[in-house]
Amino acid sequence: MPDFPAEEFQARTEAVQRAMHAQSIDALLVCTEAEMRYFTGFRTPFWQSPTRAWFLIVPARGAPIAVIPGIGADLMATTWVTDIRSFPAPSGGDEGLTLLARALSPFQTIALPMGEEAALRMPLAEFDRLRAGLSASWVDGTPLIKALRMVKSAAEIAVIREICAIGSRAFARAPDLFHAGQPLEDVFRRFRIALLEAGAEDVPYLVGGAGPGGYRDVISPPSDRPLQPGDVLMLDTGATRAGYFCDFDRNWAIGRASAAARQGHAALWQAVERGLAAARPGITCAGLFAAMADGLGDGADIGRMGHGLGMQLTEWPSVAAHDQTVLCAGMVLTLEPSLPLPGGRMMVHEENILITEAGPELLSERTPPDLPVI
Amino acid sequence: MPDFPAEEFQARTEAVQRAMHAQSIDALLVCTEAEMRYFTGFRTPFWQSPTRAWFLIVPARGAPIAVIPGIGADLMATTWVTDIRSFPAPSGGDEGLTLLARALSPFQTIALPMGEEAALRMPLAEFDRLRAGLSASWVDGTPLIKALRMVKSAAEIAVIREICAIGSRAFARAPDLFHAGQPLEDVFRRFRIALLEAGAEDVPYLVGGAGPGGYRDVISPPSDRPLQPGDVLMLDTGATRAGYFCDFDRNWAIGRASAAARQGHAALWQAVERGLAAARPGITCAGLFAAMADGLGDGADIGRMGHGLGMQLTEWPSVAAHDQTVLCAGMVLTLEPSLPLPGGRMMVHEENILITEAGPELLSERTPPDLPVI
Repeated sequence: MPDFPAEEFQARTEAVQRAMHAQSIDALLVCTEAEMRYFTGFRTPFWQSPTRAWFLIVPARGAPIAVIPGIGADLMATTWVTDIRSFPAPSGGDEGLTLLARALSPFQTIALPMGEEAALRMPLAEFDRLRAGLSASWVDGTPLIKALRMVKSAAEIAVIREICAIGSRAFARAPDLFHAGQPLEDVFRRFRIALLEAGAEDVPYLVGGAGPGGYRDVISPPSDRPLQPGDVLMLDTGATRAGYFCDFDRNWAIGRASAAARQGHAALWQAVERGLAAARPGITCAGLFAAMADGLGDGADIGRMGHGLGMQLTEWPSVAAHDQTVLCAGMVLTLEPSLPLPGGRMMVHEENILITEAGPELLSERTPPDLPVI
Repeated sequence: MPDFPAEEFQARTEAVQRAMHAQSIDALLVCTEAEMRYFTGFRTPFWQSPTRAWFLIVPARGAPIAVIPGIGADLMATTWVTDIRSFPAPSGGDEGLTLLARALSPFQTIALPMGEEAALRMPLAEFDRLRAGLSASWVDGTPLIKALRMVKSAAEIAVIREICAIGSRAFARAPDLFHAGQPLEDVFRRFRIALLEAGAEDVPYLVGGAGPGGYRDVISPPSDRPLQPGDVLMLDTGATRAGYFCDFDRNWAIGRASAAARQGHAALWQAVERGLAAARPGITCAGLFAAMADGLGDGADIGRMGHGLGMQLTEWPSVAAHDQTVLCAGMVLTLEPSLPLPGGRMMVHEENILITEAGPELLSERTPPDLPVI
């Protein structure tokens, strides 16, 4: 049932255990979807329900211990994890915390992801009680997880390549799917269906915008406003395959393109070209950002020009001036420059790449330099 | 841009402020998607990205204060919130925490959801620093939010009714969509598309199973195993409209139904009938659970027989023996009895209802008592 062979998850576990050993960490506790799936292969949309908490303990030596609600025990048993301790949930009282505390009691130094981009997917009051009831020292597990997850395995790269190809096939159908007069809400619906037809298993993320000569932001759900000649339409999707994301966008002019929109698209295309030339092992994210930003002016205010990509729509690192992460082979990144357009509007362009020793491999099909008119 | 008029969000805010006043709480801090949207109308799929933290402060008096990443400021400005304090993110350092601490500094008693079903969507290390740096007392805000969100407004009921009708229309197409020989993965894809075609804006949740005479669990993603005569197929969907969910399922026999499967379906249908008869204002969730469980034997181990439904796929309360929540008009619930079938298999049936003074209103179209054969 898991998406990869057991060896994949064993290798990830052994890698984190080597890092834990070097830092004298006795156990790593995770309670979030991506981290739990990363070490076990346990994949379910059931995380949509906030009701139940799920826990995985990776000890410094030996196999992981799952402390999970009974409803997940059968699915967990299809993974390589054999030590599965389940509790009835919801129970209105102790939701696995006694079981978790007992499982954690042998460990002195416990790492929990609590840094950059981390969340605590359990009630804080229960975590406070857990922490108070154990004599362990708690350390931030984010650097352990981040270092591992940033560099993708061959198996991960294969599925990301696949979902990026699916996204490219769906985007290629744009001229047949979208037309003036079509409400933006219908544009989104048609594109979701096109992604599924192209082979996506899910479309957890779809945003976009449309407006005369550009759009106002890149995080809004669609309105029912019909596309109009002179609009620039942008769609940005995170579709998934085997639980891994693509994340790239496309821009089109509807009927006709203004000079500013054409110039903006060309400038963003050139920025990505500079990014492709710079994106080699050894450069920092800050250096990659500078390569793209140089010549773009101030950029639009979306905070960065790309990011990591994999089990989540966005992952570390950030392609940003503050991020000194050094690129290495196996990282999967988005290149996502943006710029302001007249009238308070903007344009964003995004491609997905794999860092290799020989230079970046484009995972998304490169957009043409000239803003397509449909 | 928000899904409801400003009055809806003002009324919610005033309601929580009345409860805060009664409990001498000076401010409510929320950092999760549903809570932020509940008070503001701010809706975006951008929460898929774990990179940035988002905060909303509801003071005991006056209007909410949004402390959010710059990328969200324009969208937030379309809501009724006017006090929008934005910070650059990601920035590699202070991700809004200084701004948040300053905004919280006037308050002595701060409620944060930290109880039943809550999560902390920000790095724990940063929250620990925030808590240590303020002289405030922190109390659990979950009861405040839970009491409000459990009872839906007329506007909320209207959109839930709409998405349930959309789900019913999609399920009604099953005989045309599914057939023996079809891989389960394709069944899921066809059904996602059917939901979108029927008017769903998104399908954040789709699970199901198929197997001879029943299925093994209800949380797995689909395999590529083809449907076979004698299989029972179940699909359970959480599709959305305006950010509100339906959550119900359907079972079908493929080609022919075993006696055990037919009897199981009839028993679950009867359990829902008993639930419909019992689901009136004044009964507890425990009482509703007992009404359904009585006559079902042990049930399958999924922990409860229904739950609240709304902005999230599952919400408080739980239709379970431990839950003493008293039903009242305006609650939207799922009735979800399950039972074990021979060979380690199971069956689950689920409908969605609105509690009214006159008895429950079915929001999903009632499944027929006899297991449909397709």
